[in-house]
Amino acid sequence: MGVKGCPIERTVNILEGKWTLLILRELFTGTKRFGELRSALTGVSPKTLSERLRILEQQGIVKRTIYPEVPPRVEYSLTELGETLSPIIEALRQWGTEWADQVLARTG
Amino acid sequence: MGVKGCPIERTVNILEGKWTLLILRELFTGTKRFGELRSALTGVSPKTLSERLRILEQQGIVKRTIYPEVPPRVEYSLTELGETLSPIIEALRQWGTEWADQVLARTG
Repeated sequence: MGVKGCPIERTVNILEGKWTLLILRELFTGTKRFGELRSALTGVSPKTLSERLRILEQQGIVKRTIYPEVPPRVEYSLTELGETLSPIIEALRQWGTEWADQVLARTG
Repeated sequence: MGVKGCPIERTVNILEGKWTLLILRELFTGTKRFGELRSALTGVSPKTLSERLRILEQQGIVKRTIYPEVPPRVEYSLTELGETLSPIIEALRQWGTEWADQVLARTG
């Protein structure tokens, strides 16, 4: 199987970047506004968060809903395709719960 | 639970960077020499590959074995802790096999 065809590499390319997985973690707990995502992701800049959300929207993973209020309310949630990422998030969570301490004990 | 305590964030921090997960993918198929990793990971520079391997070694995920031959043979393999990452690699593989095409159809 060529590199292009490798399903692991395709997935890593799609989910690339720390913030992407943490945005998904937040959205798996429910619909969020931009400001809620921003406060949940300590250290993310508004520019980076907007960019990552726009890419996830283009990828069909995140859905952006605008409510015509004054000021307009904008909410982000997972699409059905986004929901299929749940086993990856759960594998990360389980490994982190069970094993990450062993790594952190070595690297501080 | 604070952000520091979030097991997903800890795992994402540990595995951060595209090459890390692809190095692990290679090592899950067996022990590899540096040159074998380099040719399997199209586009990685030797400097980046060395750095990522050194970090993985410090983290206790990868084991480096030097055989005193002339020239010395250096091999990389997973430690027992490294083997525990298998569910994450498998979740990435399964999602990539089943769903990545839907994303790639949108983003080209």
